[in-house]
Formats: sequence, C-alpha cells, structure tokens
Amino acid sequence: MSTTASPLSLETTEAAPTGNLDITVSRAELLRELTAAQSVVERKTTIPILSNFLFEAAGDRLTITATDLDQSLRTSCPAKVKKPGACTVPARKLYDYIRLLPEGEISIKLMDNHWVQIRAGRSNTKMVGMARANFPQVPEFPTASAIKIAAPALRSMVSKTIFAISSEESRYTLNGALLVLKAESMAMVATDGHRLAHIERLGETLEGITGEKKTLIPRKALGELQSLLASGSGEDDDFVEFADDETTLFFRMGGRVLTSRKLTGQFPNYEAVLPRDNNKFVIVRSEDLMGALQRVAQFADERSGAIKIRLEQNELRISSSSTDSGESEDIIETPYNYDPLVVGFNSQYLIDFLKAIGNTGEVRLEFKDAQSAGQMRPEDANEDQKYRYILMPMRI
Amino acid sequence: MSTTASPLSLETTEAAPTGNLDITVSRAELLRELTAAQSVVERKTTIPILSNFLFEAAGDRLTITATDLDQSLRTSCPAKVKKPGACTVPARKLYDYIRLLPEGEISIKLMDNHWVQIRAGRSNTKMVGMARANFPQVPEFPTASAIKIAAPALRSMVSKTIFAISSEESRYTLNGALLVLKAESMAMVATDGHRLAHIERLGETLEGITGEKKTLIPRKALGELQSLLASGSGEDDDFVEFADDETTLFFRMGGRVLTSRKLTGQFPNYEAVLPRDNNKFVIVRSEDLMGALQRVAQFADERSGAIKIRLEQNELRISSSSTDSGESEDIIETPYNYDPLVVGFNSQYLIDFLKAIGNTGEVRLEFKDAQSAGQMRPEDANEDQKYRYILMPMRI
Repeated sequence: MSTTASPLSLETTEAAPTGNLDITVSRAELLRELTAAQSVVERKTTIPILSNFLFEAAGDRLTITATDLDQSLRTSCPAKVKKPGACTVPARKLYDYIRLLPEGEISIKLMDNHWVQIRAGRSNTKMVGMARANFPQVPEFPTASAIKIAAPALRSMVSKTIFAISSEESRYTLNGALLVLKAESMAMVATDGHRLAHIERLGETLEGITGEKKTLIPRKALGELQSLLASGSGEDDDFVEFADDETTLFFRMGGRVLTSRKLTGQFPNYEAVLPRDNNKFVIVRSEDLMGALQRVAQFADERSGAIKIRLEQNELRISSSSTDSGESEDIIETPYNYDPLVVGFNSQYLIDFLKAIGNTGEVRLEFKDAQSAGQMRPEDANEDQKYRYILMPMRI
Repeated sequence: MSTTASPLSLETTEAAPTGNLDITVSRAELLRELTAAQSVVERKTTIPILSNFLFEAAGDRLTITATDLDQSLRTSCPAKVKKPGACTVPARKLYDYIRLLPEGEISIKLMDNHWVQIRAGRSNTKMVGMARANFPQVPEFPTASAIKIAAPALRSMVSKTIFAISSEESRYTLNGALLVLKAESMAMVATDGHRLAHIERLGETLEGITGEKKTLIPRKALGELQSLLASGSGEDDDFVEFADDETTLFFRMGGRVLTSRKLTGQFPNYEAVLPRDNNKFVIVRSEDLMGALQRVAQFADERSGAIKIRLEQNELRISSSSTDSGESEDIIETPYNYDPLVVGFNSQYLIDFLKAIGNTGEVRLEFKDAQSAGQMRPEDANEDQKYRYILMPMRI
C-alpha cells in the first residue's frame, strides 16, 4: 500500500522518562481507556513492541498510547501517581486481565527487567513488558489551528459512506473516504468504482476554513473514529478537533487523540459521475424493499449478486435466477407512471444503502435507462442533509 | 470413526410416493420445524441429496426429514394438502428463504424436473430440488417397547456431561456419553481420559427396565437432543421416548424423532476411577473460584493450561506462570484445616465444570494428595441428584 513516509519512527528521539512507575487507578476508568485504545494495537506480532501499550504516569494522570505505525491513539485516565515513570505492557493480556478483575482500585508498578506488577484485592500478577525506549514515538497534535467538527455530524457522515470504500488494497486512492470541508458545509464521499456514497451537510459553521479543504481519510481511521464517537457522549455540543500536517491526520475528541497516516494520490473526480437527469423514479418503504431484495438475492448468481429491477405501471418487480439454485421474484406495488424500464444491479449494493439509512422510512429510486447509473436517496424532509448513493448498472 | 453398518441406505427400498405435492402451510409452523431439522442436515456437500429436506405431504400434515446418514430427524407440521406427494428441497436455501418471508400462508408445489415452487404474498420462488427417490430411507421408530425418560432430567444430564466428552476422534469409545438406566435411577457419564463428569439421578421411575441398561450416545446426538429439548416446552411432564435396535438409537419427543447410529466399543470402567478417600476439602463460592481461575489461567502455559492449587490454613491459592507472559496468583479465603497441599490441574477443566453448574452457588473441592485425582461437586442440598467431576492432576 502506497503511503507517505512514516511519521512513526521505531527510533525514539526523545529521552525515555526515567523512574519506576508506581500508580493506583480505578479499574472502571482504566478499562474504559484500554477498551478505546486496544483496537489500534497491532494484531500481527511481527514487531513485538506494537502489541504493547505505552503507560506514562505523571502529575495525576496515566497516559496510555497504542500504535500500529499506521495509526496511533493516545488517551489518559486519572491516577494516584506515587512514582512517575513509564513502562510498556502487553496490550491484549492486560486488557483481558483488567476486564476479569472485579471493580475497585488497581495498583500498577514497574519492576526489574521491564516486568510490570498489577495488584488488585487478593489478585497479584506480574506481566512481561518491554523497554519503554523501544516504543515508537507517535505524532503530537499540532499546536497550529485545528478545525472543530460537530461529533454527531462526523459520525453520521462516516456511517453513511464507509461501506462504499473499496476493499481492493491495490486501489489505494479508493481505500478511504474524502472529507470536503467548506466554511458553511461539509461533505464526505466514498466509492469503490461500482457505487458511490455521497453525503453533504449544509448549515454547518466551520471556523478557519476558507475555500475548500479536501482530505482523504483511510478506512481504518474512519473505523476507529466510528467506534470512538459511538462510545462518546454523542451530545450535539461535542466536537472533534481535526488537524493535519504533511504526513498525518489528527483527530482529538474528549481527551483522546487519534492519528492516522495520510493516503497519497488523487481521489477520483466524483462530481462527474453524479447523475443529473434520472427522471424516472419510484418511492418505496425501505423495509419492503429490503425484504424483497434479501429474498430475491438468495437466488442471484453467487459471484455477481445480480438482480433485475423491472418498473411497470404502478409496480416494482425484483427478480433473479441462477442455474444452481433456481429463480425468485418479488413484487412491490407503488405509483409509477413513466415508461417501463428494466435494469440490473448488484443486490448487495442496494442492501448496503438500506442498512446505512437504518432500514427505516421511505427510499427513492431514480433511473434514466438500463445503461445509466441509478441513484438512491432517503425520502425525508431533511433540508440540511443531502444523502445520495449512485450505483452502476449491470448487464443482465 | 468405527461405527456399525449404516442403517441408512442410499437405496430406497420402498416405492417413492407418487403425486405432485401441492400444499399450504403457516410460515410460523413450517419455520419452527425447519429450525429443528436444519442442524441435522449434512454440512459437507459430498452427497448432494443430504443437503436437502425431504417433504412428504399426506392427510393434513407435512412431514419433514433431514439426515446426514449418521443421524436423522423426522418432524411434521399441519398443512392444507391439495395434492399429497413428496419432494426434496435444498435445506439451507429453503430455511433462509422462509425466515426472510413475512408471517402468513405459504404454498409449496412440486413442478416438473423436481423444481419446487414456494409462493407467499407477492413473493414467488422456484427452487431446484432433487428426485425424491434419491433421498435415503431413515430408520423407523421401533414398534416394540420404548422407555420414557423425563425430558428436563435428560436435558440436565446431557448439559452436565457433554463438555467432558473427548474431542479426539480416534478415541471413539470416548466420543459419546454413557447413559445408565435402572428401574429407579439413571446416570450419565462422560470422560476424555483426563477428566470425568458423572451425574446420577435417584428417585426416577423408569418403566420397562430390569437390571441395568447401558447405552453409549454419540456427542453429535447429545448436541441435537440438547437443542431439541431446549426448544421444547420443558415442562416436568414432558417425556422423551427412548428406544434402540442393533444399529440405531431413537429419541421421540413432541412428535419429533431423532435417530443416531450407535457407537461401537466398550466405554471404560469409569467406576474404578471414582475417588473414594479424598478427605481434604474446601468449599468456595463458584463465582469467586471462576474469577480467580479465569484471571490466573491467562498466565498459564498455553499448551497445558496448568495452574497450581495450594491449600494452606484457611486459604486457597491459585497460581500460574509462563515464560512468555509472566505469572499470576489469586487468593480465596475459606476454612481449611487439613495438611497443606499443592496440586496442579488444567485450568480449563475446572472452568468447564463451573460453567456446567451455571457458575452459581458453592462448590466443594476434594483432594487426597498431589498425585491423586481431585473431585469437584456442587455444594447443594439436592438429595435426588449426585453430580461429581473428577480431574486428573498434572505434574507441576
């Protein structure tokens, strides 16, 4: 995967803090932060230090850092610091162990040979850590200006586009979603070349933006943002502070800082594919369409997932057939008075969109002809949010 | 796996019913029976007909049969039978499709070339079936005497022993649990050679039993029984009718018949390993022991899972150590006044037992010395049920 040079170097440039870390923390507070940080920890164990958390104790806080070199998360919790210092602890083992402890105070102490002692009640464990000096340095949130984005808005934009990101690693400029920030609106767009999800929110106020700021956010970082924002309070007045430098994206929310390497390359010119004259449409209940699609998709060709949509007088027919399993058809009655139309799509792509809108309300399907892209939109009265989903047709 | 000759022949001896099956069933009633039957369907597709359900319609019922040649399940649901007949339908596809249909009436009709038409509301599907004549004949419940066993008692015995069955396929006489029926008691026992679970229920009345009837039930059949009994009403007056012939075990419950090939071979003489002089014991809360074990087990050697139990004056210590991950200890305070003792066990085996008793109440741990088997029992006042679990010690 082509990325810019790593801002996370395995060589630490600053001096490792000295001192034998010795602290007490609340199990609940520690567990909450470990839960947030553990998903960033490297799964593979090719570089052992990346399977560890970095613990740094100073003042009245414990700072926890996790990184897989592509991303990092830095968070903290209150601590009674008897001796400040730093150590590293195997992330998965520690997380599992803390989860299994009953509620209460936990003492954490750095011992000889990088061993770390964890004590709680009548439980006493010594874990094999590694030298703090081996833990890579993670990028610091820039002191220069950051942009404040409403957390619920960002979360909604991510959930409405992330599923359309390409899963082909070779298409690296499609391995993320493009965030487009303007002074009074923001948008996010993702595509895999076969379908495209685009959401635009008007009536936002983004200070510090002049003109347009476009940022490609890698899928992995979007996934982390999604879970960090889901576990947050989600209040309307919550903000994510967003900043970037040459190589790195930074997101700060509720005391936690997520960083991600930037993806290089040019996101495709998506505006050129947005349909402008899809003037045949039907409106159906999301649930009805989902049920019909799921049933019929079972009998679609397994590789292509192709289903056929046939629009006729006040009727939407969805059908499929495969030599292996048989054929299936569902009919939804709905007003339709344009010319009849038959067009093929990948059933999973339609299902993905219905899931993204929570499978509620009504959805509008807009077509031009059998050779042109179709468009789906939620049929609601949300003036401040424009959500559209474009699907390339299949030959059927 | 050594089993007796198959009672399920791929050649059907009786004439296939003629007639083009044409019926209507309630989706809820059909789905309930398909759910029960689908777990018996062969997962591998080496013999395609075994991936199908056999449907037979006659009178006012639809009979559904599934088999993987080792087991079979036969059940039925009410049906409006326009034309009696039989057909086969791909089991997984049908089950998924019926689940996705809304509540209501479903019509099922056999078409040409073994295709089967499924219609419901405005949904219309044709599935590729296979010739009914290819479906293997399944054993018929014997007309001779069957033994009635209380369903909740059987279910409890299965859940308290199934986990101790060996997962090594080569040890085929340990690939099941032994059911021991007497006129006024019944017992079930399972072992993998390292631990043994034994449950005996007194005060049962089993008609038609003289002396002792011992039956080895394969693990797969026990698993099916467990789920069939779990989905049943579970009332105290529910019975399972149990019968066997030369090759096959039969279980009838609520109109459903499960059959299983018998396992051949001699179950080991388990009575010889039941400890008789484990006169050192402690009693601990199940939850406390579970918590301590789970925490400490994380730092046990991964391959052996070995933990050390140390009994000293009013104290139970559980500890582990591994070169990779570190060491861990938990202490539970509990009355203990015998000689100190240190003994090693596979932590997972202890955890399995605590799960089997629902991790509630108190548990008694009984020991002789570091070389002898330990025993665990629930510490409750249930006079009618004797549950014991024997664990071989590990060198530590």
